[in-house]
Amino acid sequence: MNRSLQTIVILLLVLPLSVTAAEARADALPSWQYGATKLRIVQFVERATTPGGPGWVPAAERIAVFDNDGTLWAEQPLYFQLFFALDRIKALAPEHPEWKEQQPFKAALEGDMNAVLAGGKKAILDIVMASHAGNTAAEFGSIVADWIETARHPTTGRPYTEMVYQPMLELLAYLRANGFKTYIVSGGGVEFIRVWSERAYGIPPEQVIGSSIKLEFELRDGGPVLVRKAEVDFVDDKAGKPVGIQKYIGRRPVLAFGNSDGDLQMLKWTAAGAGPSLMAIVHHTDSEREWAYDRESHIGTLDAALDEARVRGWLVVDMARDWNAVHPPAEE
Amino acid sequence: MNRSLQTIVILLLVLPLSVTAAEARADALPSWQYGATKLRIVQFVERATTPGGPGWVPAAERIAVFDNDGTLWAEQPLYFQLFFALDRIKALAPEHPEWKEQQPFKAALEGDMNAVLAGGKKAILDIVMASHAGNTAAEFGSIVADWIETARHPTTGRPYTEMVYQPMLELLAYLRANGFKTYIVSGGGVEFIRVWSERAYGIPPEQVIGSSIKLEFELRDGGPVLVRKAEVDFVDDKAGKPVGIQKYIGRRPVLAFGNSDGDLQMLKWTAAGAGPSLMAIVHHTDSEREWAYDRESHIGTLDAALDEARVRGWLVVDMARDWNAVHPPAEE
Repeated sequence: MNRSLQTIVILLLVLPLSVTAAEARADALPSWQYGATKLRIVQFVERATTPGGPGWVPAAERIAVFDNDGTLWAEQPLYFQLFFALDRIKALAPEHPEWKEQQPFKAALEGDMNAVLAGGKKAILDIVMASHAGNTAAEFGSIVADWIETARHPTTGRPYTEMVYQPMLELLAYLRANGFKTYIVSGGGVEFIRVWSERAYGIPPEQVIGSSIKLEFELRDGGPVLVRKAEVDFVDDKAGKPVGIQKYIGRRPVLAFGNSDGDLQMLKWTAAGAGPSLMAIVHHTDSEREWAYDRESHIGTLDAALDEARVRGWLVVDMARDWNAVHPPAEE
Repeated sequence: MNRSLQTIVILLLVLPLSVTAAEARADALPSWQYGATKLRIVQFVERATTPGGPGWVPAAERIAVFDNDGTLWAEQPLYFQLFFALDRIKALAPEHPEWKEQQPFKAALEGDMNAVLAGGKKAILDIVMASHAGNTAAEFGSIVADWIETARHPTTGRPYTEMVYQPMLELLAYLRANGFKTYIVSGGGVEFIRVWSERAYGIPPEQVIGSSIKLEFELRDGGPVLVRKAEVDFVDDKAGKPVGIQKYIGRRPVLAFGNSDGDLQMLKWTAAGAGPSLMAIVHHTDSEREWAYDRESHIGTLDAALDEARVRGWLVVDMARDWNAVHPPAEE
């Protein structure tokens, strides 16, 4: 056989095979509508796992980071952790009769979120500390575990762990099946997310990076404990996200997925890597199946990051167009 | 066949097999002298990996934490990172003519470590900040990579990465082969260790926990950078070790290995878990092949933790007795 005939035969043999293989792998993402968005994700992963190719990423460097609120699960009408905080304030209220007259607790107990939010960062911090600190790491874990089991989303009535995004669950699993290590990098509380991240996303506690309050080691009668202090330790948001990534992982990700301006620095940090990378944004465009919001929203503001994505050619996932399904089917 | 005959036949078939298998697994630790110490380690691992047995540890919970200085590599005559700091001070001296007259830099430049140490914590901190801060995370990584490649231990003349302990390398690999996730939990600098931990120990950067200085995200002309600030972020020593473990891993280890009082809280925290656990201490008893020191040493003081180990029955590894080899053979 001459050279060119040989090439044609090889192509004929190999091409259908690789199309089939690609289709089989693409099927790992059934909730992603067939189209440019899905193809770009699949192409990145296929190239990352093709040794010697131009998009090859060595296995150890396959670090993929995901924002949580608005990227892996919903964040409307309010960050879910704030619902937890409000429920916790209500549960603790009998021990704090003074809260009846003291803001922002009074507003929180009356369920008047607008009044709480009117208090700004100080009010939110007061609510967060009162609801998150003062116990041990083990106690806090149990409290969150009980809450996540029993609490229901105010408009859908579903457990919060069913408010996760089905296409993102598929993407996480697809990446892991291709040797990626999947991390959460969230502005939310690390100890809040860790309780249920393994069950909800298949992401173990040690792969959750988030905001934290200070911990203090203490020896008590019952043995050593870690006490949660009412003091901010680390804010894993905006410029804090690349810092958190470096602190916890110590390598630059090759894939970053966010949905708001809070993710912009993490996306820039990922984009600045020397090798292949994929930066992506979930754009909430679906007012029927979910919520539609971006530049004007107080929750999950997507403004500068959307401009940056367009200028730089980052992937913008149009939820209404690109997702066949939004949430997983209800568990029975 | 009747029931008891069947049982005997099964036992005859199975017993030699399991002895062979146990011996094969024990061979994963050739540098550990056959005896009570080695058997206790092997027994813990065998039980941890036997589903349904009393010592069973589910795979996801097989978290093993190791101190670094004096546990995974040597720490005499001085913590190796201090040699790095001193070399760095010398390299930076031309840019700092004032150091010639200014302590602790003057003493450091003259190689008078006693004078540096006489300055106490303040002097050490000055040296550490001057040698570790003020550059970017990427620049610092390159500096450490160059140093670890070229620097030599002052008494053995070996590269520092050959001053690791051969029995501990075998133990790390043995644990990983049995589904354990191996972590470093060091008082040393996290960004210092991460540069060479994968090559030296097979431990990737994301499984290194250590002390840190603050990082700040900055946009420069060349793109985003993480600037290392001359400000302590976290001290991963003593009571800081359980805190670091919770911050980074979010689960309690089932195996902890240290060598000094700086590891006592980490050992206590591990021991306080509900399930099976193994707490162990490397006791430096070998003045011929290494160094012999414990209660009176300024480096790697082992006093309260040795008492605690004896009271609680933690494993105390007698280096002279339990290790057939100390360091790996020299690389050519």
